[in-house]
Amino acid sequence: MDAGRILDDFRSGAITREQALELLDKLPYEDIDFAKLDHHRQLRRGGVETVFCAGKTAEQVRIIFERFIAAGGNALGTRASAEQAEYVRSALPDVQYDPVSRLLYLVSRPAPKIGCVAVCTAGTSDLPVAEEAAKTAEFFGADVKRFYDVGIAGIHRLFACLDEIRTANAVVAVAGMEGALGGVIAGLVSVPVVAVPTSVGYGASFGGIAPLLTMLNSCAEGMSVVNIDNGFGAGYLVARINKLAVQGNRT
Amino acid sequence: MDAGRILDDFRSGAITREQALELLDKLPYEDIDFAKLDHHRQLRRGGVETVFCAGKTAEQVRIIFERFIAAGGNALGTRASAEQAEYVRSALPDVQYDPVSRLLYLVSRPAPKIGCVAVCTAGTSDLPVAEEAAKTAEFFGADVKRFYDVGIAGIHRLFACLDEIRTANAVVAVAGMEGALGGVIAGLVSVPVVAVPTSVGYGASFGGIAPLLTMLNSCAEGMSVVNIDNGFGAGYLVARINKLAVQGNRT
Amino acid sequence: MDAGRILDDFRSGAITREQALELLDKLPYEDIDFAKLDHHRQLRRGGVETVFCAGKTAEQVRIIFERFIAAGGNALGTRASAEQAEYVRSALPDVQYDPVSRLLYLVSRPAPKIGCVAVCTAGTSDLPVAEEAAKTAEFFGADVKRFYDVGIAGIHRLFACLDEIRTANAVVAVAGMEGALGGVIAGLVSVPVVAVPTSVGYGASFGGIAPLLTMLNSCAEGMSVVNIDNGFGAGYLVARINKLAVQGNRT
Amino acid sequence: MDAGRILDDFRSGAITREQALELLDKLPYEDIDFAKLDHHRQLRRGGVETVFCAGKTAEQVRIIFERFIAAGGNALGTRASAEQAEYVRSALPDVQYDPVSRLLYLVSRPAPKIGCVAVCTAGTSDLPVAEEAAKTAEFFGADVKRFYDVGIAGIHRLFACLDEIRTANAVVAVAGMEGALGGVIAGLVSVPVVAVPTSVGYGASFGGIAPLLTMLNSCAEGMSVVNIDNGFGAGYLVARINKLAVQGNRT
Amino acid sequence: MDAGRILDDFRSGAITREQALELLDKLPYEDIDFAKLDHHRQLRRGGVETVFCAGKTAEQVRIIFERFIAAGGNALGTRASAEQAEYVRSALPDVQYDPVSRLLYLVSRPAPKIGCVAVCTAGTSDLPVAEEAAKTAEFFGADVKRFYDVGIAGIHRLFACLDEIRTANAVVAVAGMEGALGGVIAGLVSVPVVAVPTSVGYGASFGGIAPLLTMLNSCAEGMSVVNIDNGFGAGYLVARINKLAVQGNRT
Amino acid sequence: MDAGRILDDFRSGAITREQALELLDKLPYEDIDFAKLDHHRQLRRGGVETVFCAGKTAEQVRIIFERFIAAGGNALGTRASAEQAEYVRSALPDVQYDPVSRLLYLVSRPAPKIGCVAVCTAGTSDLPVAEEAAKTAEFFGADVKRFYDVGIAGIHRLFACLDEIRTANAVVAVAGMEGALGGVIAGLVSVPVVAVPTSVGYGASFGGIAPLLTMLNSCAEGMSVVNIDNGFGAGYLVARINKLAVQGNRT
Amino acid sequence: MDAGRILDDFRSGAITREQALELLDKLPYEDIDFAKLDHHRQLRRGGVETVFCAGKTAEQVRIIFERFIAAGGNALGTRASAEQAEYVRSALPDVQYDPVSRLLYLVSRPAPKIGCVAVCTAGTSDLPVAEEAAKTAEFFGADVKRFYDVGIAGIHRLFACLDEIRTANAVVAVAGMEGALGGVIAGLVSVPVVAVPTSVGYGASFGGIAPLLTMLNSCAEGMSVVNIDNGFGAGYLVARINKLAVQGNRT
Amino acid sequence: MDAGRILDDFRSGAITREQALELLDKLPYEDIDFAKLDHHRQLRRGGVETVFCAGKTAEQVRIIFERFIAAGGNALGTRASAEQAEYVRSALPDVQYDPVSRLLYLVSRPAPKIGCVAVCTAGTSDLPVAEEAAKTAEFFGADVKRFYDVGIAGIHRLFACLDEIRTANAVVAVAGMEGALGGVIAGLVSVPVVAVPTSVGYGASFGGIAPLLTMLNSCAEGMSVVNIDNGFGAGYLVARINKLAVQGNRT
Repeated sequence: MDAGRILDDFRSGAITREQALELLDKLPYEDIDFAKLDHHRQLRRGGVETVFCAGKTAEQVRIIFERFIAAGGNALGTRASAEQAEYVRSALPDVQYDPVSRLLYLVSRPAPKIGCVAVCTAGTSDLPVAEEAAKTAEFFGADVKRFYDVGIAGIHRLFACLDEIRTANAVVAVAGMEGALGGVIAGLVSVPVVAVPTSVGYGASFGGIAPLLTMLNSCAEGMSVVNIDNGFGAGYLVARINKLAVQGNRT
Repeated sequence: MDAGRILDDFRSGAITREQALELLDKLPYEDIDFAKLDHHRQLRRGGVETVFCAGKTAEQVRIIFERFIAAGGNALGTRASAEQAEYVRSALPDVQYDPVSRLLYLVSRPAPKIGCVAVCTAGTSDLPVAEEAAKTAEFFGADVKRFYDVGIAGIHRLFACLDEIRTANAVVAVAGMEGALGGVIAGLVSVPVVAVPTSVGYGASFGGIAPLLTMLNSCAEGMSVVNIDNGFGAGYLVARINKLAVQGNRT
Repeated sequence: MDAGRILDDFRSGAITREQALELLDKLPYEDIDFAKLDHHRQLRRGGVETVFCAGKTAEQVRIIFERFIAAGGNALGTRASAEQAEYVRSALPDVQYDPVSRLLYLVSRPAPKIGCVAVCTAGTSDLPVAEEAAKTAEFFGADVKRFYDVGIAGIHRLFACLDEIRTANAVVAVAGMEGALGGVIAGLVSVPVVAVPTSVGYGASFGGIAPLLTMLNSCAEGMSVVNIDNGFGAGYLVARINKLAVQGNRT
Repeated sequence: MDAGRILDDFRSGAITREQALELLDKLPYEDIDFAKLDHHRQLRRGGVETVFCAGKTAEQVRIIFERFIAAGGNALGTRASAEQAEYVRSALPDVQYDPVSRLLYLVSRPAPKIGCVAVCTAGTSDLPVAEEAAKTAEFFGADVKRFYDVGIAGIHRLFACLDEIRTANAVVAVAGMEGALGGVIAGLVSVPVVAVPTSVGYGASFGGIAPLLTMLNSCAEGMSVVNIDNGFGAGYLVARINKLAVQGNRT
Repeated sequence: MDAGRILDDFRSGAITREQALELLDKLPYEDIDFAKLDHHRQLRRGGVETVFCAGKTAEQVRIIFERFIAAGGNALGTRASAEQAEYVRSALPDVQYDPVSRLLYLVSRPAPKIGCVAVCTAGTSDLPVAEEAAKTAEFFGADVKRFYDVGIAGIHRLFACLDEIRTANAVVAVAGMEGALGGVIAGLVSVPVVAVPTSVGYGASFGGIAPLLTMLNSCAEGMSVVNIDNGFGAGYLVARINKLAVQGNRT
Repeated sequence: MDAGRILDDFRSGAITREQALELLDKLPYEDIDFAKLDHHRQLRRGGVETVFCAGKTAEQVRIIFERFIAAGGNALGTRASAEQAEYVRSALPDVQYDPVSRLLYLVSRPAPKIGCVAVCTAGTSDLPVAEEAAKTAEFFGADVKRFYDVGIAGIHRLFACLDEIRTANAVVAVAGMEGALGGVIAGLVSVPVVAVPTSVGYGASFGGIAPLLTMLNSCAEGMSVVNIDNGFGAGYLVARINKLAVQGNRT
Repeated sequence: MDAGRILDDFRSGAITREQALELLDKLPYEDIDFAKLDHHRQLRRGGVETVFCAGKTAEQVRIIFERFIAAGGNALGTRASAEQAEYVRSALPDVQYDPVSRLLYLVSRPAPKIGCVAVCTAGTSDLPVAEEAAKTAEFFGADVKRFYDVGIAGIHRLFACLDEIRTANAVVAVAGMEGALGGVIAGLVSVPVVAVPTSVGYGASFGGIAPLLTMLNSCAEGMSVVNIDNGFGAGYLVARINKLAVQGNRT
Repeated sequence: MDAGRILDDFRSGAITREQALELLDKLPYEDIDFAKLDHHRQLRRGGVETVFCAGKTAEQVRIIFERFIAAGGNALGTRASAEQAEYVRSALPDVQYDPVSRLLYLVSRPAPKIGCVAVCTAGTSDLPVAEEAAKTAEFFGADVKRFYDVGIAGIHRLFACLDEIRTANAVVAVAGMEGALGGVIAGLVSVPVVAVPTSVGYGASFGGIAPLLTMLNSCAEGMSVVNIDNGFGAGYLVARINKLAVQGNRT
């Protein structure tokens, strides 16, 4: 039952004024609100749903993907293990899996890639997190350029590709260990930089605390930070900024 | 000396080929590069310089502002104490000070406010950090709407102004204590959310660690985080995103 | 405008079906929901509002209390400094202040004390937090018995008053340093125990982390924990449990 | 030997006054006290014993359950591994095992379920901890309603079942990652909320520290916290509160 | 009422068997146990009471000392501020105060010093904690030898007095910063070493965490650790060990 | 070469005064000191050597034990894995292994057990650490009484054996989770208590940090703490104290 | 294209002044700078490249080593697993692997060992980290003396080899657990000491935090610290200092 | 009495062989060793003593300086407050004080400055720590070049002075906040870099933990770290390296 139906029933006398008020009182939490938000998500994500696969059984993941498929949209699963992927794909062969980024995805309705975001890493070992960011941004419609292994220990490598990085509408900076890459890039570009600390390292990197703190404390302007190893979050965010930058005309 | 001068001197024979090469070798770090970056900063910030006042003497702050004034642009000082402000303003009366946000600023060339960013706080005690964010965003050209005291302990207050928040191009969510505001907002809007943990609280808030972790761990998409109490960083970042969203047409 | 008015206007033809639907869509967040929740708070708290005074200016606190007074209910301010209290009370002499618990309160409509809750402390230095808990519980309608300085270093003191503690419907256990009091009590009584770690101590108590961890790790059943020094939270919670225990007959 | 026997022997002259005094001096720690406390536990738990299985050998667990069975009551083992369960059940087939909650239990004397407690989770991955809470509450006599996957990233899901949650006498809120669920619920209901942080998450969740701090710092009233992943503790506590709320008439 | 009285009343028929049993059931927690434990403390400490003064008002400290004086024994207050001391001594002039160790004490019945304990410090800045340990050990009857500023940065200073340290029955090792003194001494002596980390230092000493961890991780045998800056605890403990070593003949 | 030989050579003219001085200058670090300390260790430990087996190869452990055997004394290896034990024992069948405490030991010269130390645990899961303490104390000559599973959640169990614990010359208190056992015991006995936190627990026990902090912060007098899970250290220390208490007559 | 070519083309008229300026503007980041830095690295390291193998696939490591071999220089891989080593060596048999230090290396152009550095460890379990330091220092041209198992628990062992340690130009001090070795050595020698904390230990060593803090807080002069278990970093650094000390004559 | 005297007395018959042996046995810890180490320190430091003033009384500092003056050498006090300085200088007017670095020093025998070390800072607020490093290095004989405010947020500033930095024999890199300066410099120079984290910053810099971790985790080779704000330690260490680099010819 929706609000329109209540109004109609009220006007027709099928329900009293008191009944109409009571029904309206419960409506926002049950139906209207639900639909409204769903509609909202639909608009925002272009018909895409995402699921965090870690801590779920392979069967739970399969059921969720089946619902996504039934809904006819795109779907993205993060942190999917090879076992989960194999199980899901044996039932749903259209679902794809990338073992590096551990993304499990179904693209029913491919969208054209627009704009440009840059994904940079300090080292080769940061690649899985960077790929999660890059593929997520592509999944949500951004054109992605990759700049890997440009960390500050050999800062000339970063400078060599700086002009190209500057063409992006937003930059993802992925770094473990000391994690200084984000701050250096943010000091050199004029678009938002999303820094992703990684758990790459040992000893006093404390599983990513060191680069996380480095990034939070950067005095370079225009940078923000997401959770350790959260390539998905960074990729989603730059895709969102990229869309704003391409569409424009907002007031 | 710049590259053009070296070329001219070389062609005229005033310097030899070896001398020209040596001069060119040092040039990027001394002049070209410097100018190039300055030009870059100029474009990016609209002739604005910023200075972190904490840990500097009042005299150091005054000298820096004098240089800014001589350069003819706008200037922004963060975390300025009342003492620093009084000292600077006694010498430079055009400089203004806001005791709530502790911002010290000089606006020689006011820019029109464009677009819209929202600054939200969980509680009244988060106001100083929120004002730092809001005034910084305004300083960098964004139109700002403020939504204070809309924390999740009484979530109806947030919903009451949700439609208005949704009109913004980017949202700053300022919260101490449990810090859940950012995640709730990010789950309800479709634009980037920049979360600012504050040191408001006591006991196990550990000076802002609790809301910082809350924000980093949010599973709401489209949110990133800046340092504890870093209203400036959030304000600068949303102004940058706002500009992208208004201008658009980027590729 | 409320839902009834919309229904009436719709039936009278003052607004169209489309206008009615649009108005209803916005209503839950603006009016109905607001009222509903307010009504809800009213029922829950017996017309009481609370305010966290730390980090607010004395003037902000005064304004909030003025609104409370205008609303005709009771009001409770926590962590109020002596300066805030003096400022508020010079304007609003009916407001009372307890310097030990730092509670600032206005009791327009005194309620009868019902049931019984026990507030215990390990040492004398935990007294301010314990008083915040005890006075808060009294403020919300519970009869309170105090058992101070019954820590485990001299466990016979606790046993001496155990029978009396066991008559309570809920127990608050306040302890700093090692913080073992809560677990010992929870092992000896059959009602819920709310443990409050305090920042009393030095060195490796780390401002209350030590008793907090002790309490969280207790293997005694029936105990839960609130934030360090959060006497208010514990007092509010046991008052709530006490009310359930006295009223009963819930299904 | 008990106190009655001592009195009788003293009156009969079998022991002297000095002997009687000496026996009485040791009695409380040996017999009376022991029995008294056992009686006390018996009353409190309805003849139920619990055992923390982690860190014990399968044989140790079996022996403990054998004693429970011999005592004729119910028994509950927490954090039992599949190996422990298999070993115990091969010897004691009446013992049951739930692999999701890792509870091992024997119900010799089933009790009728009374009242109502709600167990809510933020996400699907929090399910094992939630089931430990729910099954424990059921084991101790509470009727349990489950509301899973109602986290704040999609807050409409929570609102959709809010009215039903409000019928409970106590609520368990289970959440990992940012852990904001508890505070949101506590702001919306009028009964005690027991929040359980889980170790679900990655990076800066630090094995559950992030949601633990979120919950401890919540400014929503009426909520307390138990240890990370401690579903048992929360389930036991809400069952205790539920019993108070159903029985009532306490003074 | 005590157990003897109950027995007598029972035999005389003044109370019934049931009444006697009920009285005896409550006795251990009320009277016998209390007296027993008091007697126990009396024996253990030689009529000495101690009080932790921090966090207490000057008046509370005075009242406690007055009771001690009335009881006719010795008394020791730790962490007393100069203000507390002045207030107490203005009322009770026999009480003495040592501003370095912040000990406030009353010695009504001086005891002869026996045996020998050594108190060593790494640096001069550790002196206040060391004096708290030394004076406490003396207060509880031990003869104390002081070896200050013998830290490992100039390890020859320690060796110069090693033979003398080796004559002690127990050693207190006080050190801040790196805190290695305890482990070095424990490797060189054959009696128990009690290590006291101090909050002396800066930066990564984190208020004493660094030396605390150093001491806990020492692989030198025969050493244990007390809380940061807890000179009292160490002094009390070595006095206790010293007494055992002097008396001997224990089985 | 030793000092006597140098003196003789000097007197006989075999070496000059300068040569004698140079030899003497190096002597303390090379020979005298070495022998002196070895002699010292010999006296202290009764011909016993210990080795920390974790992090060593099985072969390294075997070689070390072979040297111990050649020296004709007793030997004790801690934290030996089953693999290390099997490897060593296949070559050296006289070496014994206890899989619970993970101690590997060789007793060539059994010593009579003297005095008495008590080893107490809070729970059954603390047993491996407690056995490491108990067996170590026995190895170093102490008679040991074990009191397991006497934690504070059921404090009557502790009281039931308190009189027996009080007969010991020193007490080891082993506890994980909340770790309150040590403080309770120290408040009830008059001999030194060595507290051992264990890594037993989950969630906010943080691998033993919780009980470690509890123990360090105890306000019960006469207790000190060793590293998490360091049963060996506690056992060695109480054996040392026990020896002092039995021998006595020290000055 | 390099700067000389641009000058020549400009003089010859092959490119215009504007073209020359544009080429020069990009040059530093693309060619000159790159070459300059490479040349710089070449000089600094003597044609050696290093690669951090952890987190890379075996194939990635092989490709990197193939490039090193093609470049004709030496190569060093750190933290290589046995699997990586086997894979690389099956393709490139000249590459060598040391399973203790986990170094994978290729020495095409052996260099003479010069000077002297000392590598000391506190215990046998620190050997893998020490070997990484020692072999790295040798790889970079230093002559290395090893002093293992000279920790402070038996400080005479250190003194026995002190004269020999003092002949080194720089010292690496490797220690886990309490980590005091570095400070003791730094107090006894006059050359730079590089301290390496190791993750050897258990409980409150927290994976190397304890020795890291010990070393950072040492008040012995002339010592600095590298990351936990970072033998490579220490070995590289002392080789660098050693080279300075041997070459000398710097101004 | 020294060893020579003992030898002479022994040869002359003034003491017996037994007496000579006994005297020699004690000598190393009392006289020879003392003298040897003093002689050693004398050589190492050029007659300089240092004292950590924090935590000492002004009088203690004065007495220590008086001894230094009596010894005729240079003296350096670190972390001296203005009050300590004033007190010392009123008695000893030759002592000098620098309020920025808080160094208190007496230069009786000025030494020529040799070689070159560079001291760099990321920001202006790091200046006090940098000055402590620079003045300490000068005090110990190094010629110092300062490069302040060259942090990575504007990396062109660093490049502008890179050639000059490269002329140094060792570099001190002082940085707070994100602390990335050290790693960037270490990637660009070929001499040892000593990184000093500072407590400059706020929020998640946690009093210098953030830059400390950044520096420890740097993958740039040739860098090591000292304690937070430990300018003295860094200055001393680079002076030592500088001396090695200038003298050379070591084997």
